Amino acid sequence: MSGEAPTKDVEEGRALAPKFDADGLITCVATDVWTGEVLMVAHMNAEALQRSIETGEAWYYSRSRQALWKKGESSGHVQRVREMRIDCDQDAIWIKVEQQGAGACHTGRKSCFYRAVPLKVTGVVTLEFRDAEKTFDPQAVYDKPS
Amino acid sequence: MSGEAPTKDVEEGRALAPKFDADGLITCVATDVWTGEVLMVAHMNAEALQRSIETGEAWYYSRSRQALWKKGESSGHVQRVREMRIDCDQDAIWIKVEQQGAGACHTGRKSCFYRAVPLKVTGVVTLEFRDAEKTFDPQAVYDKPS
Repeated sequence: MSGEAPTKDVEEGRALAPKFDADGLITCVATDVWTGEVLMVAHMNAEALQRSIETGEAWYYSRSRQALWKKGESSGHVQRVREMRIDCDQDAIWIKVEQQGAGACHTGRKSCFYRAVPLKVTGVVTLEFRDAEKTFDPQAVYDKPS
Repeated sequence: MSGEAPTKDVEEGRALAPKFDADGLITCVATDVWTGEVLMVAHMNAEALQRSIETGEAWYYSRSRQALWKKGESSGHVQRVREMRIDCDQDAIWIKVEQQGAGACHTGRKSCFYRAVPLKVTGVVTLEFRDAEKTFDPQAVYDKPS
C-alpha cells in the first residue's frame, strides 16, 4: 500500500484513485460482454485509462513498444467498453467489451487464453489447446502494406 | 520478451513456460465458473502456480505480506479450480473457480469488482457501487480469535 489515501477511502469511497505500479501501469482484464470469456490481460497507464473512460473504447499501454496503444488501431479489432469496474484496492481494472472484428489475440484467435493447463498433475505439464481455432489470419490483418 | 524461448514456441507450443516478471510473479485472473464474473485479480509465484496445478485449489503470492497464500486459509473461502488457462505470451493465468463460502473479496463481497467507473465522461470521475452488497461480515471471518 502506498500512503496516498486511507485504505477505507480507497475501498469504500466513490473517488477514482487508481493505484499505478512503479512503472505507472495498472492491470486490465477484458472480458467478452456476452460470453464472459476472458479475452486478454493488458496494462493501462494513466492516459490509456483516461482515454478509455472518455471515449468508451479500450486504450492500453504496450510495455514492449513503450507506447500508448488503441486496441484495434492496426487490426480494426476495436473494443467497445460496455462496462468498466475497478477492484477493492484500485489496482486492477475489469472491462466488459464488445469485441469488434474476429478476435482480440494477435495470434488470430478470439481470446488470448486458447490453451488449458491440466490440473492435479505433478511433473511435466503439457498444455492442451482449447477454443484455439483461428478466427482470422494475423498476417493479413497486421502485416498490411502501408 | 525475454530470450528464454522463441516466440513461436511460447505462443504455439504445448510446453508450459510461464513468464514471471522481475519480482517472480505472474498475474492471475479468477472468474466464477458459473457466472463468468471476475472475482479477483492476484499474483502467483512459481510455487503458487505449481501448488494450484497440483492441488486444483488456488494458491497465490501476497505482495503486501510477501508470502505464499492459499486462498481461503483464513476465511475458509477456498477456490476450487475447475479450469486453468494461460495466455499467448504466457504472462497471465486465467482460472475458472468454484468459489467456496460467501465471497472472494476481503471487504465481504462476492467479487472485488463492486464499483463501476462511468464511461464517456470527462473531468472528475465518481464511482458507482454495483453488485456491492456484502455477502459476509469480514470482521467475523478474518478477525477470528486464534
